[in-house]
Amino acid sequence: MRRSRRRGGSGDSLTRVSDFSAARQILIASNRGPVSFSRGDDGHLSVRRGGGGMVSGLSVVASRADLLWVCAALSDADRAAARLAPGGMLGLDGTSGGSDVQMLDIPAATFHRAYNTVANSVLWFVHHMLYDTPNHPQFGLAFRRDWEAYREYNQAFASAIATSRAADGKIRALIQDYHLALAPRMLAGRSPGTLIAHFSHTPWAPVDYFRLLPDDIAAEVLDGILGADHAGFLSRRWADAFIDCCEHVLGARVDRDARTVTHRGHVTGVGVHPLGVDAAELTRRGAEPDVEARMARLREQVGDRKLIVRVDRTELSKNIVRGLAAYRELLLRYPQWRGKVTMLALAYPSRHDLPEYREYAASVQRLASAIDDEFGSPDWDPILLRANDDYPRSLAGYRLADVLLVNPIRDGMNLVAKEGPILSDGRCALVLSREAGAADELGCEAILVNPFDVAGTAAALHEALTMPQDERARRCRSLAAIAGAHAPADWFADQLAALDAGPGGAG
Amino acid sequence: MRRSRRRGGSGDSLTRVSDFSAARQILIASNRGPVSFSRGDDGHLSVRRGGGGMVSGLSVVASRADLLWVCAALSDADRAAARLAPGGMLGLDGTSGGSDVQMLDIPAATFHRAYNTVANSVLWFVHHMLYDTPNHPQFGLAFRRDWEAYREYNQAFASAIATSRAADGKIRALIQDYHLALAPRMLAGRSPGTLIAHFSHTPWAPVDYFRLLPDDIAAEVLDGILGADHAGFLSRRWADAFIDCCEHVLGARVDRDARTVTHRGHVTGVGVHPLGVDAAELTRRGAEPDVEARMARLREQVGDRKLIVRVDRTELSKNIVRGLAAYRELLLRYPQWRGKVTMLALAYPSRHDLPEYREYAASVQRLASAIDDEFGSPDWDPILLRANDDYPRSLAGYRLADVLLVNPIRDGMNLVAKEGPILSDGRCALVLSREAGAADELGCEAILVNPFDVAGTAAALHEALTMPQDERARRCRSLAAIAGAHAPADWFADQLAALDAGPGGAG
Repeated sequence: MRRSRRRGGSGDSLTRVSDFSAARQILIASNRGPVSFSRGDDGHLSVRRGGGGMVSGLSVVASRADLLWVCAALSDADRAAARLAPGGMLGLDGTSGGSDVQMLDIPAATFHRAYNTVANSVLWFVHHMLYDTPNHPQFGLAFRRDWEAYREYNQAFASAIATSRAADGKIRALIQDYHLALAPRMLAGRSPGTLIAHFSHTPWAPVDYFRLLPDDIAAEVLDGILGADHAGFLSRRWADAFIDCCEHVLGARVDRDARTVTHRGHVTGVGVHPLGVDAAELTRRGAEPDVEARMARLREQVGDRKLIVRVDRTELSKNIVRGLAAYRELLLRYPQWRGKVTMLALAYPSRHDLPEYREYAASVQRLASAIDDEFGSPDWDPILLRANDDYPRSLAGYRLADVLLVNPIRDGMNLVAKEGPILSDGRCALVLSREAGAADELGCEAILVNPFDVAGTAAALHEALTMPQDERARRCRSLAAIAGAHAPADWFADQLAALDAGPGGAG
Repeated sequence: MRRSRRRGGSGDSLTRVSDFSAARQILIASNRGPVSFSRGDDGHLSVRRGGGGMVSGLSVVASRADLLWVCAALSDADRAAARLAPGGMLGLDGTSGGSDVQMLDIPAATFHRAYNTVANSVLWFVHHMLYDTPNHPQFGLAFRRDWEAYREYNQAFASAIATSRAADGKIRALIQDYHLALAPRMLAGRSPGTLIAHFSHTPWAPVDYFRLLPDDIAAEVLDGILGADHAGFLSRRWADAFIDCCEHVLGARVDRDARTVTHRGHVTGVGVHPLGVDAAELTRRGAEPDVEARMARLREQVGDRKLIVRVDRTELSKNIVRGLAAYRELLLRYPQWRGKVTMLALAYPSRHDLPEYREYAASVQRLASAIDDEFGSPDWDPILLRANDDYPRSLAGYRLADVLLVNPIRDGMNLVAKEGPILSDGRCALVLSREAGAADELGCEAILVNPFDVAGTAAALHEALTMPQDERARRCRSLAAIAGAHAPADWFADQLAALDAGPGGAG
């Protein structure tokens, strides 16, 4: 879900970031940056703030600290803007010639192979365990060419960081996510004095699944991240899985107590840094008139029925089809809910250039229609499925939800599970997949489900719908309090502290 | 692949079995028994020896020891035969009223749900990691009904064992495979004096994949096997994965050094018992005239080209499509082999009542045709794909193979990898998936491959084809020697010894 955020809140940790940044300059490297461009019908480039949970989180920090953000041009418009700006340098607001953002003009074909084919169709699939294994993946000669592009893409980032204006001084480079698994090692080779962190926003695959990758490539990915001084994860589970892979796939020496991995004579600390929500900012945004307008419209459609809400990108890992199937089983097994409940399913477009995703979006549509045909009446639409991007509508959904359903197959964190309770004002019960990183923190007050267990998810929805008002309110308050911890600025400061403390020192 | 075997060889260990059987009677329980029936056009029931590697192995033992083999009627003809025999009792040759085999007349609908839906479409898929996870499995209400059938099916076995003629004395019950995961616990409850072993002929899923199962069912499967005194596996890897699941899914107390699991006050020993081939018997069978005839025919087709052979059921886990894709990449990347090599792909029918299997068989056909179209010439058929059952042809393939390709995604053991070198007479190089249990033993002399790495498999085929004759002969002899260890009778005696020694005592 794309969104824009204003900045605010969390003054203390931002001070900490500023303190740190006085000592060493900070570089962030991520595929998607804080701005993107589009070209209008008149050929003019217009700028907008970048989307996605990670970008939103980092943008808060970027606005306060003296840092340089290195990102890729994602589109032809981005590439045009990057070429117009000297050295690809932009301001945080997208102005050419600024000093906040360096947008890398990576050739479109290289970018496509690195981003769509390797990062999103292979590494993402491995870490989320999404493959139809009898048929996919097939790592043939074509994949070797794609891997070469992934290397070039990573090398472009490593070069940009190593030759940045700050590289003559001491810098800390915070390299983000599975797109950039090789960059830490490449950077360490070129710029030995740099403190390097890598952060994985995804889950990490268990050993038996990680081994799907060709052996040399599996080793290259692990070795790439181990070029960093600190490797961060959103959940203890993912950090442990990474350490398992380092030991059993790479043969590195690991210390599970100190959480360090020693490889090629270098020690990498492994840290757990959960990411939360800036509650003050979200609450402020959720009270704006565009959200109120969507609430009014939604109240009209739902009436006095109970409202189950889900908000996801239409991503294979988000498990929208089984969520709809569970709703169907709710209506079958607990017929008292027929006509008394509505599901609002906000399923935003995602990765439509991958055929699996187009097919999945079609499956979502089909099942929603089938449920509508099976149970709907002139007075009642059991499902409101909406596929067009509308951030204020998502916030309106959070505010009105009686039940928030978040049931991913596997998810690094999942911020929807945290945003919902913050906005719902004591009204919302959370049904949450235990396979989301967020379950570590929210599991005590959520109703946890096995995402493959459709019957179990239906039972959890029934339990959530029938939860007494006082228990619901108590749990929701507690969920909101937990969700507001580790706001982006704190999360970022936490990583910097761990990086500065060195392996085994923090995190 | 179905086959019949004669008995012979391994006299020592059979003596050991007889010794054991003097102390306590032995009961084997498995889905498929040593005999099956078919009904001719005239309505008459005719008998044949059962097929499959496990059945062949156990049949050798059954013929020598005083034991009772409890199995399910698999077809309408089997059910008719079971009903005609008093108590379903048959001789090992299928004669009614014998005392060797008890064939259970489980209702067809119950059998179908337990066997096709639960055992083969769920437990098999979980242990072999075969799911297309974004879409399957969906454990809804229908699955709960199927699971009830699986319980009934297991209960039928437990009841038959508990009330068998031997149950008044002390017996040892050896319960086989994923079809019968619940029977050990059910039997332990009914028949406390019985020594119970369970043996898994499949891999065991890693924790993160085993957790796909609904929580209560995952726990029931583990608890079911832990009703046994001894749980056996074909490879250390599968035994370790089982122990991991007992600890992390069930919360049982495990001792990895002693290889025991303590649950509900009962200690289960976990053992590794690899299964090998009766080399003398296989060699004898491989020299019979029907095999020689197929060899002559094959020599005509192949001429003086190098011959790559694969022999599998058309099973999703066997990875036939990627094997063909690797052969295609061999011809692309090493064009010197065009016209100089033939692949004989024996892909026998399997589970055609499951739609995924029919689709998979079609994919195999399509890719083989595509390769034939791309590379074939009037003088050269690059692939000979054969889908009709023909055991002597398989043996002829083993005898003539220059390279044997065994590349399963995941496999409990894989006996093809062991049979081939025994019959090949020093001629054959083995390209073997490291994800097969057989890689534990054969890995030192085989060329190991990552089964998902098509380019790597193509390179391994090239390496195998170009291996010098003396190295090939040395390795093949060594492979044959290893493959002949743990012949079925030894394998069985080993399990009995571990069962009698008690937890931590052996295995």
